[in-house]
Amino acid sequence: MKIAELDTPVLLVDEAALDRNIARLKDMTEAANIAYRPHTKTHKSVVIAEKQIAAGAIGICCAKLGEAEVMAANGIDKILITTAVVGESKISRLMQARTQSHISVVADNEDNIAMLGSIAQLSGMKLDVLIEVDIGQARSGVPPGPEAARLARLVKNHGWLNFAGLQGYQGRIQMTVDADERRSANETGLDKLAATIAAAEKEGLNVVIRTGGGTGTSPFDLDRGLLTEIQTGSYVFMDSRYAGIGWPGANAPPFENSLHIWAAVVSKPVPDRAIIDAGLKAASNDHGPPLVADIDGCVFEYGGDEHGILCMADGGEVPLEVGDKLRLIPSHCDTTVNLYDQYMVVQDDDVVDVWSIDARGRVQ
Amino acid sequence: MKIAELDTPVLLVDEAALDRNIARLKDMTEAANIAYRPHTKTHKSVVIAEKQIAAGAIGICCAKLGEAEVMAANGIDKILITTAVVGESKISRLMQARTQSHISVVADNEDNIAMLGSIAQLSGMKLDVLIEVDIGQARSGVPPGPEAARLARLVKNHGWLNFAGLQGYQGRIQMTVDADERRSANETGLDKLAATIAAAEKEGLNVVIRTGGGTGTSPFDLDRGLLTEIQTGSYVFMDSRYAGIGWPGANAPPFENSLHIWAAVVSKPVPDRAIIDAGLKAASNDHGPPLVADIDGCVFEYGGDEHGILCMADGGEVPLEVGDKLRLIPSHCDTTVNLYDQYMVVQDDDVVDVWSIDARGRVQ
Repeated sequence: MKIAELDTPVLLVDEAALDRNIARLKDMTEAANIAYRPHTKTHKSVVIAEKQIAAGAIGICCAKLGEAEVMAANGIDKILITTAVVGESKISRLMQARTQSHISVVADNEDNIAMLGSIAQLSGMKLDVLIEVDIGQARSGVPPGPEAARLARLVKNHGWLNFAGLQGYQGRIQMTVDADERRSANETGLDKLAATIAAAEKEGLNVVIRTGGGTGTSPFDLDRGLLTEIQTGSYVFMDSRYAGIGWPGANAPPFENSLHIWAAVVSKPVPDRAIIDAGLKAASNDHGPPLVADIDGCVFEYGGDEHGILCMADGGEVPLEVGDKLRLIPSHCDTTVNLYDQYMVVQDDDVVDVWSIDARGRVQ
Repeated sequence: MKIAELDTPVLLVDEAALDRNIARLKDMTEAANIAYRPHTKTHKSVVIAEKQIAAGAIGICCAKLGEAEVMAANGIDKILITTAVVGESKISRLMQARTQSHISVVADNEDNIAMLGSIAQLSGMKLDVLIEVDIGQARSGVPPGPEAARLARLVKNHGWLNFAGLQGYQGRIQMTVDADERRSANETGLDKLAATIAAAEKEGLNVVIRTGGGTGTSPFDLDRGLLTEIQTGSYVFMDSRYAGIGWPGANAPPFENSLHIWAAVVSKPVPDRAIIDAGLKAASNDHGPPLVADIDGCVFEYGGDEHGILCMADGGEVPLEVGDKLRLIPSHCDTTVNLYDQYMVVQDDDVVDVWSIDARGRVQ
């Protein structure tokens, strides 16, 4: 089937570009001798996770237990759940999924650790726990320093829990445009993680895993060498915001846009306005509107839940007619992917495969 | 099952409040002697569409063909697709769904009308077409006046198409807070529709259906009496933005919030900050952040794709602990619903049913 024949809106993945992105991160991490455990909250796809593992990833990250359940049920091993799993019901589900794959989880709360231990014991299986440290995100995670060591000790002393290491992640600096500014903020965060590691080691704890980092900070994380593994997610697809960040040496990021929204013109009531069938339900807006690919000077504006409005920046006629199809570059890959059930995998003008977005909507 | 036992985040529908909303619109439209064809793009649920029809709705609206296919396959009849269906593939799908239910569609383009006619002929079934008029939205639809009559004539003259009427809808004024300002903008739009109806009637066309309007303009649409049916959608659920608009007579809208997001605290690293498990993938942000229900002075801020951050407006301690659950009021019901696969139907503290969000993600 040709791309031109696809009903719209739909997600296109350029497999060759995706594979190049995966190969580039593999090369970068190999050169730095640091592992990577890519975050699958971006793509939510078993096929892509398998590609990452085939390219040397030591496992995967999931944001939610529901994602980990899908990945584990499909044979993906060595999963780190990067947010706390709280409450009896969810921890019981966690231990159930743990029977299929090795799954570790982060924690930042004493009561949560106690419940993880109790339910691990009930299930007769030991559970690896990492302590989450707030290294600058001001979200979850214990403050840097001795508190992490105290919780790590609680984990270590519980017969059914293993203390596996520390997680420190700053999501909000990943897309800082200026590379030097991003490096500086990253160093500040990693200094806090280093101090926390030192505090834990001083108490005789062995911090085997030091996990964190994202696509934006990856060159600096690999350079510094404090983390034992990085959690890059967006590098597989990129998006308009990530594509615009600076890279060391005044370069562009080494990753390509491999994900597009394929949309169609459904109305052109006047020459300077074309209406397409992709609105808020087809292109997430939390990082602003998507970009129009392939048509210089053409600008997308949201026209509500179901429509996008295309105009030319110079006010001229939009060079599209009703029925024409075009590509948009998502502004935020993660939240856009979460709107769809499948990827149409493309090579030039051909659709060569369909991949399920297996963990779409698995927010629990 | 008790609500407290539900894994989070999840959507809750208060069935009694939903039923009261449905009954109120029925009363309003009956008193005005105007029909209603509720927009199901809001709820995407067959069960709720059935409730609306049982309460006197003359059919339903769908935004996309994919939604109409789901509704038709589940026995819902008299469906109006409120956006153009463009291209051979989609029009063929439309005629296929047309074998299950009566489906009509809007159009604003000559080539599209010709293709609708050709494929209707091939399928051996006549198709009802309404002409969409741009009465102020500046999106799709022909300009008010003679152009609509010209297209209506093309429809009427095609042996396999019926000219069914006109659609005029202004989405962007539905949430104008000031009731007088909203009424005034609505009258301006309806004047344009009235002029278009007059132009069509002058040419001997019978404009049987005059469809448009939404929850925000419903009191004015019912008052004026130009439309033969209104397309209200959000009234079933409401949301924080709709709840804040004024109503004639300085009243609040007569509809209640019947939809909530049920979320849980997963981290409380410091007393003045609680982290919940609902972020951008659980609560749409195109109308701003959701509101925190039941806790005065507690404010939600997005903490990324997977987290929400709760603080008190006065900077004090958040009265929640890890594991506590709470209700959020979505800022935009349509785009929030589209993130989930099911509704948990609740009555007081009990979960009494589960309804599928049948047309979730049906953007094509």
